[in-house]
Amino acid sequence: MVVSLTFTTLTTSATLTTFTTKMKKLEDLQQIISNAVTKLSFPTHPAELYEPIKYILSIGGKRMRPALLLMACDLFGGKVEDALSPALAIEVFHNFTLMHDDIMDNAPLRRGRTTVHERWNQNVAILSGDVMLIEGYKLMMQVENRLLRQILDIFNNTAVGVCEGQQIDMEFEQRNDVVIDEYINMIRLKTAVVLGGALKIGALIGGAELKDAELLSDFGEHLGIAFQLQDDILDVYGDPEKFGKLVGGDIISNKKTYLLIKALELAKDEKALELTDLLINKKFENTEKVKAVTDIYNSLDVRQYAETAMQCYADKAFKALDEINLPDDHKQYLRDFADGLMVREN
Amino acid sequence: MVVSLTFTTLTTSATLTTFTTKMKKLEDLQQIISNAVTKLSFPTHPAELYEPIKYILSIGGKRMRPALLLMACDLFGGKVEDALSPALAIEVFHNFTLMHDDIMDNAPLRRGRTTVHERWNQNVAILSGDVMLIEGYKLMMQVENRLLRQILDIFNNTAVGVCEGQQIDMEFEQRNDVVIDEYINMIRLKTAVVLGGALKIGALIGGAELKDAELLSDFGEHLGIAFQLQDDILDVYGDPEKFGKLVGGDIISNKKTYLLIKALELAKDEKALELTDLLINKKFENTEKVKAVTDIYNSLDVRQYAETAMQCYADKAFKALDEINLPDDHKQYLRDFADGLMVREN
Repeated sequence: MVVSLTFTTLTTSATLTTFTTKMKKLEDLQQIISNAVTKLSFPTHPAELYEPIKYILSIGGKRMRPALLLMACDLFGGKVEDALSPALAIEVFHNFTLMHDDIMDNAPLRRGRTTVHERWNQNVAILSGDVMLIEGYKLMMQVENRLLRQILDIFNNTAVGVCEGQQIDMEFEQRNDVVIDEYINMIRLKTAVVLGGALKIGALIGGAELKDAELLSDFGEHLGIAFQLQDDILDVYGDPEKFGKLVGGDIISNKKTYLLIKALELAKDEKALELTDLLINKKFENTEKVKAVTDIYNSLDVRQYAETAMQCYADKAFKALDEINLPDDHKQYLRDFADGLMVREN
Repeated sequence: MVVSLTFTTLTTSATLTTFTTKMKKLEDLQQIISNAVTKLSFPTHPAELYEPIKYILSIGGKRMRPALLLMACDLFGGKVEDALSPALAIEVFHNFTLMHDDIMDNAPLRRGRTTVHERWNQNVAILSGDVMLIEGYKLMMQVENRLLRQILDIFNNTAVGVCEGQQIDMEFEQRNDVVIDEYINMIRLKTAVVLGGALKIGALIGGAELKDAELLSDFGEHLGIAFQLQDDILDVYGDPEKFGKLVGGDIISNKKTYLLIKALELAKDEKALELTDLLINKKFENTEKVKAVTDIYNSLDVRQYAETAMQCYADKAFKALDEINLPDDHKQYLRDFADGLMVREN
């Protein structure tokens, strides 16, 4: 499962307008992307190759990754139009990973709509996904010649990272000895590198020095890890009314989250046996299982560990941010954005 | 099924050495590729992502596509070393298409070895294939800056073409109204554009003018179509001892080849009913079916039609060749190569 990137829009945008009059609001950038996505054109033939691409792109999502790319360009004084095609490349690439991940996860739904391999068939989802990756490259190439190689290098590394993350995540399902460092590396690859990559590409298009683009990339990558850890916490401790999905879903599916890995590391003797039994034994009803596992988490303080880890990565993100050569109000914009991400309740 | 590119090595190489002393023999170029493929290095972790890539690349093949890329570079006076990474890109890309095609075709074997999705599993084959496509881009980018955009544009078009060809081929399996023009377009996309693309990239690296690179690309594309038509003919009329695979395999699997499409177009009344019955009715034993369908082909002269079409594309290839601005002995080298391809018996 790829985490959905949402954040508390109201808080953030209200703050942003106080500090920056020139900078574009994130919602506006998301809107620019949404409009541009609807205008993306693909051949009509063969229909089964291109219809699924239009379909998956049409079923939405927050367009956060490409909006961040535009935001990075804007932050460094670039024209948002110059970054639009690469931003769309990131969105097309992201949706390619969703199309293939959904096959691998055997997922029937994506954002409440039928997945491509279910609506058409698996072969269609494999091949349309392949073409999306190529279309991603075509869009990413729409940059000035002087930036072409540098930006494609970043894109290549990002793309390989995401695939590695997905592979490691699949391997975790078969393993019972995953340790925290491995988990952090997996979420870094699967979720965070694409945020870092998008920010770096946008920054370079906006005219940033390489050093600053790399610091912004670090900011995004650390923030992405913090965000995923927050997601792990919210799955168990989120307000059911605000979380938007089933609380305890990760527990029910035995998903190796930070909380579970930490609990498996800390639990001793009887508690360890009880936890293992909850994971293996199929006799437990869902509500009962969620409650029992949560009780173990509480007794071991794993929420505290997770929040400390989350704060540690948020701090790393802010530290990278401090070092970027940007005016204070621009940095404040990014700080507000990060705060908006981290105070979310869904 | 992607056609295996083989040709009568002995005839060709003997002729080649007569005409060109400076030019590298095709077998030598194939050997350069084979050596370089074994030296390609990939990360060791995650193993299930990279092991299948090493595996599929290790099980061989003629390395014809990348060798043609090197040959094109050599023809125009370029250094073969400068074209080596892009040539490997073509080979990695080709093997990516095989890995994904094998899933789609549910094929248990590839070149006599277990396919990746059978040896590991389907998810591994999807994701390793994805990474191969990205690795293909990384290798293709190892060209001079002045050629980077042009070469990646060709690569993008080639890659999209191959995917379109595969999709159209899959759709053909469900259709009974395929006409010859559609079939030619399908084999052009699925088999021929990658030959044209490889030659064009090699020519540009070798210093060819764009016009000459395009003519060489046309040569390769037309020759690729002729080659596939030859393959269709050999499936039915090849010498069983030399063909190397089961004669009539396409007939047994109802594959829509040039011969079958033409026969369906020409057959009238009772013969049409008989042919349809042979395709639909499962009561026929393989040998009986091959003989009966071949008899219908013979009565309708479809072999003649196929050979005429093949000759037509071979002529187009030679016409493009004539217009290329290259010394006569270099053109002769290409003519001999083409003749070697077309006189094959396997």
